[in-house]
Amino acid sequence: MKGLIQVYTGDGKGKTTASIGQAIRSAGAGFNVCFIQFFKNKKIYSSEHKILEKIPNIKVLNFCPDAPHFIKTEKQKKSIQSECEKALKSIKKIITSGKFDLVILDELNIGLHTGLIKLKEVLEILSKKSPKTEIIITGRYAPKKLLAVADLVTEMKKIKHYYDKKIPARKGIEF
Amino acid sequence: MKGLIQVYTGDGKGKTTASIGQAIRSAGAGFNVCFIQFFKNKKIYSSEHKILEKIPNIKVLNFCPDAPHFIKTEKQKKSIQSECEKALKSIKKIITSGKFDLVILDELNIGLHTGLIKLKEVLEILSKKSPKTEIIITGRYAPKKLLAVADLVTEMKKIKHYYDKKIPARKGIEF
Repeated sequence: MKGLIQVYTGDGKGKTTASIGQAIRSAGAGFNVCFIQFFKNKKIYSSEHKILEKIPNIKVLNFCPDAPHFIKTEKQKKSIQSECEKALKSIKKIITSGKFDLVILDELNIGLHTGLIKLKEVLEILSKKSPKTEIIITGRYAPKKLLAVADLVTEMKKIKHYYDKKIPARKGIEF
Repeated sequence: MKGLIQVYTGDGKGKTTASIGQAIRSAGAGFNVCFIQFFKNKKIYSSEHKILEKIPNIKVLNFCPDAPHFIKTEKQKKSIQSECEKALKSIKKIITSGKFDLVILDELNIGLHTGLIKLKEVLEILSKKSPKTEIIITGRYAPKKLLAVADLVTEMKKIKHYYDKKIPARKGIEF
């Protein structure tokens, strides 16, 4: 199979869950899957991890667990930028190795949007991906240059959300 | 937890996968999940089933496995309508029982759109759902009256799709 590039963006619920669902379907088909999350604390997002980590052909990795909105100082920002830089080096190996049929980069777009991850570096890595590897990138605010190299883009558009009625994020549903 | 109603619709990829991902997250949080698919032949959509069926607190059900576009005659349509009617009776029990924290009705919207399933009956069942049960309904062409009773609606909007470049559905990705 020729691996393509898929992007899930927009302000609606369903981006991360779609990537988890894709990991499940692909794993069920015998694919080797690497599920990589940025900016998500494994302790908080433990629900999905509990299941994903039990599936033998899904490798789960977490980078930069602190969400960008927790960054208060320039020093913190630099430290996370350098953590992201290191993460990208590992990801480059994963994407170019040909060992994985599907690599998911959950919330990468948030890194690009906040300047914690450099778009130029991501585009360079994507241009060198193994031809067999399918890539899924999720997160709000996907930059136009990323959409340009993607083969599929779905905008998860919020038509209605219970957050707007002050219902908070719920365990088992949002995390 | 108070169970809400979520709808995923639109012409973009990610509706069924988002519901699978939600099933995984909820199951990981210890929820009892019932994943119900309409119009999908289990032999074709075996990839996701292989994993979902192994998870103890996810029950998987398939109703009316023939996709509506395979219906050629009025006789076939009537037969599937009556199959859907029976399915709705089972679903009513599932949704009202309080045994499940999350019930997913994948592709139900297609049934509503094609007239195989009656909207009036679905709305009646939803009005009687157990207060604890979260409901997810997926599929293109969600009717406005369904959106009106939903607490969350995401439109999966196709910005770009490789189908438009004649790349066919791929095992492990689409099914």
